[in-house]
Amino acid sequence: MSMKYVLPIVVALAVLLSFVPVVLSKQTDIKVSEKMSPQTQSCIGCHNNYTPGIVKDWMKSRHANTTPADALKASALERRVSAATVKSGLSEYTVGCYECHSLNAEKHKDNFDHMGFKINVIVSPNDCSVCHPQEVKEYSDSKKAHAIANIMENPVYHTLVSTVTGLKKIQNAKVVAEKPTDNTLRETCLSCHGTKVEVNGTKTVSTKMGDINVPQLTNWPNQGVGRINPDGSIGACSPCHPRHAFSIEVARKPYTCAQCHLEPDVPAWNVYKESKHGNIYFSKEREWNFSAVPWTVGKDFTAPTCATCHNSLIVAPDGGIVAERNHDFGSRLWVRLFGLVYSHPQPKSGNTTTIKNKDGLPLPTTFTNEPAFDHLIGKAEQERRFKTFKEVCSSCHNTDWIDGHFAKLDTTIKETDAMTLAATLTLVDAWTKGVEKGLPTKDNPFDEPVEQMWIKQWLFYANSAKYASAMTGAPDYAAFHNGWWYLTSNLMQMRDMVDLKYKMLKVKE
Amino acid sequence: MSMKYVLPIVVALAVLLSFVPVVLSKQTDIKVSEKMSPQTQSCIGCHNNYTPGIVKDWMKSRHANTTPADALKASALERRVSAATVKSGLSEYTVGCYECHSLNAEKHKDNFDHMGFKINVIVSPNDCSVCHPQEVKEYSDSKKAHAIANIMENPVYHTLVSTVTGLKKIQNAKVVAEKPTDNTLRETCLSCHGTKVEVNGTKTVSTKMGDINVPQLTNWPNQGVGRINPDGSIGACSPCHPRHAFSIEVARKPYTCAQCHLEPDVPAWNVYKESKHGNIYFSKEREWNFSAVPWTVGKDFTAPTCATCHNSLIVAPDGGIVAERNHDFGSRLWVRLFGLVYSHPQPKSGNTTTIKNKDGLPLPTTFTNEPAFDHLIGKAEQERRFKTFKEVCSSCHNTDWIDGHFAKLDTTIKETDAMTLAATLTLVDAWTKGVEKGLPTKDNPFDEPVEQMWIKQWLFYANSAKYASAMTGAPDYAAFHNGWWYLTSNLMQMRDMVDLKYKMLKVKE
Amino acid sequence: MSMKYVLPIVVALAVLLSFVPVVLSKQTDIKVSEKMSPQTQSCIGCHNNYTPGIVKDWMKSRHANTTPADALKASALERRVSAATVKSGLSEYTVGCYECHSLNAEKHKDNFDHMGFKINVIVSPNDCSVCHPQEVKEYSDSKKAHAIANIMENPVYHTLVSTVTGLKKIQNAKVVAEKPTDNTLRETCLSCHGTKVEVNGTKTVSTKMGDINVPQLTNWPNQGVGRINPDGSIGACSPCHPRHAFSIEVARKPYTCAQCHLEPDVPAWNVYKESKHGNIYFSKEREWNFSAVPWTVGKDFTAPTCATCHNSLIVAPDGGIVAERNHDFGSRLWVRLFGLVYSHPQPKSGNTTTIKNKDGLPLPTTFTNEPAFDHLIGKAEQERRFKTFKEVCSSCHNTDWIDGHFAKLDTTIKETDAMTLAATLTLVDAWTKGVEKGLPTKDNPFDEPVEQMWIKQWLFYANSAKYASAMTGAPDYAAFHNGWWYLTSNLMQMRDMVDLKYKMLKVKE
Repeated sequence: MSMKYVLPIVVALAVLLSFVPVVLSKQTDIKVSEKMSPQTQSCIGCHNNYTPGIVKDWMKSRHANTTPADALKASALERRVSAATVKSGLSEYTVGCYECHSLNAEKHKDNFDHMGFKINVIVSPNDCSVCHPQEVKEYSDSKKAHAIANIMENPVYHTLVSTVTGLKKIQNAKVVAEKPTDNTLRETCLSCHGTKVEVNGTKTVSTKMGDINVPQLTNWPNQGVGRINPDGSIGACSPCHPRHAFSIEVARKPYTCAQCHLEPDVPAWNVYKESKHGNIYFSKEREWNFSAVPWTVGKDFTAPTCATCHNSLIVAPDGGIVAERNHDFGSRLWVRLFGLVYSHPQPKSGNTTTIKNKDGLPLPTTFTNEPAFDHLIGKAEQERRFKTFKEVCSSCHNTDWIDGHFAKLDTTIKETDAMTLAATLTLVDAWTKGVEKGLPTKDNPFDEPVEQMWIKQWLFYANSAKYASAMTGAPDYAAFHNGWWYLTSNLMQMRDMVDLKYKMLKVKE
Repeated sequence: MSMKYVLPIVVALAVLLSFVPVVLSKQTDIKVSEKMSPQTQSCIGCHNNYTPGIVKDWMKSRHANTTPADALKASALERRVSAATVKSGLSEYTVGCYECHSLNAEKHKDNFDHMGFKINVIVSPNDCSVCHPQEVKEYSDSKKAHAIANIMENPVYHTLVSTVTGLKKIQNAKVVAEKPTDNTLRETCLSCHGTKVEVNGTKTVSTKMGDINVPQLTNWPNQGVGRINPDGSIGACSPCHPRHAFSIEVARKPYTCAQCHLEPDVPAWNVYKESKHGNIYFSKEREWNFSAVPWTVGKDFTAPTCATCHNSLIVAPDGGIVAERNHDFGSRLWVRLFGLVYSHPQPKSGNTTTIKNKDGLPLPTTFTNEPAFDHLIGKAEQERRFKTFKEVCSSCHNTDWIDGHFAKLDTTIKETDAMTLAATLTLVDAWTKGVEKGLPTKDNPFDEPVEQMWIKQWLFYANSAKYASAMTGAPDYAAFHNGWWYLTSNLMQMRDMVDLKYKMLKVKE
Repeated sequence: MSMKYVLPIVVALAVLLSFVPVVLSKQTDIKVSEKMSPQTQSCIGCHNNYTPGIVKDWMKSRHANTTPADALKASALERRVSAATVKSGLSEYTVGCYECHSLNAEKHKDNFDHMGFKINVIVSPNDCSVCHPQEVKEYSDSKKAHAIANIMENPVYHTLVSTVTGLKKIQNAKVVAEKPTDNTLRETCLSCHGTKVEVNGTKTVSTKMGDINVPQLTNWPNQGVGRINPDGSIGACSPCHPRHAFSIEVARKPYTCAQCHLEPDVPAWNVYKESKHGNIYFSKEREWNFSAVPWTVGKDFTAPTCATCHNSLIVAPDGGIVAERNHDFGSRLWVRLFGLVYSHPQPKSGNTTTIKNKDGLPLPTTFTNEPAFDHLIGKAEQERRFKTFKEVCSSCHNTDWIDGHFAKLDTTIKETDAMTLAATLTLVDAWTKGVEKGLPTKDNPFDEPVEQMWIKQWLFYANSAKYASAMTGAPDYAAFHNGWWYLTSNLMQMRDMVDLKYKMLKVKE
């Protein structure tokens, strides 16, 4: 059946249904709140049949059961919206399909006419900021929001990305590398970092309702944290608050962070799982409350998840604030454990493309571990953040315990960075000898086997030991599981391979 | 105490108990349904003391609480039995020990006299088909049911199995390989694929009830999916519906599939865990219903498990069928991601031993990636299955989203297969030069280090990237965790090693 | 504010509060039992504000809600305390902060004056033995209690530890190793094994209550199983019963053991997760009872966790004892799977430093797999333990099943040890040729790449296959995931590398 006939019928039905909530309810097993907007009722009139999974998911959500007006009545600590007011026309309806997918239509190049409504395909942080401006502001200053530029517009990291993900072919018994395709970038690095979603005209797709015209989006679907949206905004809320429940519970559970922060390069999740905190989480979490705002230590939970330490609003049982909510996930962090190639103070700006080190490279440290201090936070700010962070620890641990823990982390950072330096010097040695044929050359520092061993030293092994040290009690990630065992054996193998390659130069042909 | 005295006493007691359910109930803490057969009551009279774990497991199960006659009364969509009728004598009793372990005794070489009853040790799919014929029929046509022949009667795969699992000894500073033992095969490949369980006379075992005679079974215990049973049937239901609850809930949870489908070769479980679907599953599954038949999207669950996409009967909240139940787990799949050594259309038959490619090898593709089309499903069938599969996706995702997702998968398949081809050409290069001593030789393509790097290219790394691409949002399995990082670095190392070995030939002794 | 003023005020308040439980209750949201001691009420008066997480954790615990006097009234099977009596002054109060942290003060070098009370920082097994003497006795004889000496006072293992965790620097293009620092030892090996915690004077720490004086503890915090405590006792209860709930539930769940027993060296947790037992655990555990004493098979659980097989008191539904509780976690084990470098009968003593093999080395086997029988349990004791262990299996499995399972394990042990022997012989071959420059030398058997491949053979790959074999149904850990695949390919690579190094010696400079 052609769209020509289907669309008017559907729209007519939708409009009709929007005036008969009781009938809708009966026909579709949907409980229609009187506070659901007529437009959203229309959306659901069809989508409950066509995409019932997301409709039901949303029906159980807070969005489906609260109006902004009601949300604004909560006390300061209990409020889940940060807007001072929400404009009339939105505030009196529950937060439904239409309320979110129709916002700021003028900015949305992905806006299109859908069954008589003007709909944006993608709901962006800028749209969410209508009710949650504080969260969006914080997030937009974070490294996460700039995750695409930070990796793709930094020539060094971009070379690493291209070297790893570009297709290789064999020509004359040599490996020849191509540039990575958009799809493979989207599958690998940009799946977490985010893609640039642009509108490239429209296209016709065949659906159960016949052919319909929709915007032609590039690099879609994608839920990366730094996604560039068709309205020009950056970032995405759905990686952590997955559609269409947009749940605080899911965001607070560690599975969410686990999608991107996992071994071998960022083994936060793996270390957490095997830590004492993880042990208690997995044993007891079903007795905890992951939806309470504020989140009360001892009452709602007795061991932290990622969100507890890094961004949630935490209060003591007496109501005193332990830590403020902050959607810049680096805001409580003084040191950036993640080695590039060494640990360093957190960058001043979430946009790290402007960093330049002494060697003129866009890296936070030099190859011999001199930090680019001008672009990194200073001692005082480090101290301030460290103090904030330790407030969370002190809900369960005394000062001496906490100090002892972080003294250990300091040693780990220093020593694993030194193990990276040893690997770097070994590589530089090979590069120096590399004027002769058969040894690695410096032009692309990421494409030869010895260089890839060097990458593993800082990206896999030093990081693993650092994360294990930061989250108490997952010792094997510091020892045999990608930790010190590999820091040592990988270095020995690098040395061995460089010696071997040097020896090979002596072989008379 | 000799068996001579024990057995008659036990049998007498058992028979006695079978007439006094109230007494049984009191003595053993077992709730005896009036619908439990007298024989099963006898079984339980002893086994509640001797193997209480499985008795209690069964007592909580649907089998223990339903008769086939009652099960047959359910509506078509709600029915859990596919037989049109179940014969009298069975249908009026709950499905207990005796009902299952006494079926088709004439076919069972493992039938033996046990305390006065004729009992089969192993309950086979053929026995289950008394109530579940449709499921058994579907399963018996699947690759799973033929899992033993598919690996052990294919000379290429058999060589791989033997090379990996055969014991190695050192003789004159050389590695000498032996054939694998039955026990080690049973521990490794055949633990998932299944063993051939045969009856080899009888033996006497010492039990708490004295010595008893039992059939001597070979390669037992084993719960592999393609087990060859003593009644001549193939397959096993217990890998997914573990004894003695035989639960649909357990089969639908992903832990079940995880036992065999895990990294590094088939990382379906690992990818699922870190995917957005997995994130939602782990966060919300305790609010879901894993026992409902049919299984209603949105109502019973809001994110899929393995079973949702691959085989369960899924309905929309309005009762419309989204996907039919099918126990041939490949029935919704158009492409076989799993590289052997490249991805290819699903084979026509679950028995893949008859496949022959252009080179005359029993493989679905040639070494240069030409599919053996005659043995693989055609375009039309691929389309049909793809459409079926996408119906499940469309419960929560729109057409454009789904298309964008699978376009990405297509690219991944093409490119990871190309990365495998690059490794294959590197190996062929080594083989060609291998006429000289010291280089790999083609006779056994699996036994030398360069060859084992090639195996990792397709079996570990290409598969990992493919599975990550197929299940959205587990990017590290496509990137650093066995994905593109290793596809690239492994290829570079292969090239390096072949060059090195070639150079070594030049060394004058 | 200086401590000078704070302390007396706090103490006064504390004492005051200890007489007004109702007021305390109101102010702090703490339910004060009449059976909470006045001292503990004082502790909580402050700590509910300063470390609310642990206070709330404890409030929900059995300790907070039971007095020893009441605990002693339980029947023999149901008793959770093993003391015959508990002295007056302790027995009538619930088990609170003061009850535990004030015990045996005269032995505690970490005792200090804290707000008017004499408090031990660390509660040791010796303190717990006031109520739980049997558990502490059993534990103190176990390998766990001696875990520090067993690794650090054995010269061979100590060399391995130092080689892996010592910092490496590059000098003149050579790797130069230093001794490991205390902090890095504490982060890696000793995080599980335990540290020696000593008191080194006092120090002043800044807290929210001002500066306070506390003992200066070395190597703290640490919760390793063999910790040496400031009271001279060895061991720690908190690794398995984490502070401050000290829960039996947590100890029985497998996440607890997982912190130390994980891949690649001790992959018990990884194997369990992917086993049939793990599959059932993860699918059904929320219906089980992890707090019941005794623990009834079938009723409280239908598949085992680590604790079920290794140490819990297990009874049948009829109350008959299946296995006695034992806090020596090796007490039911006949064979020590964990290769050092081969599997062997369990050592006679938990302190393994006295073992000497035929070659005079402090190892349970020689390099060619001759066990040091004098130091290992004999056949009869092995049989006795095997029988005890199989009692647990037989709750769900029949004799033939169990025998078939363990026959498979026997084969795995024999063959994986043979695969280790093949690697050892390859290494010895290299050492023999190593009189020439450029080959590995025997002086430190752990520091060169070929030697580190040998370590992986027994520590990672043989262990993985052994653990997979011991816990039925996690076949990939025996096959591709660190099992036979790597046992074979690692051996081939070792052979290849030794040949290559030998060939390199022939290169004319």
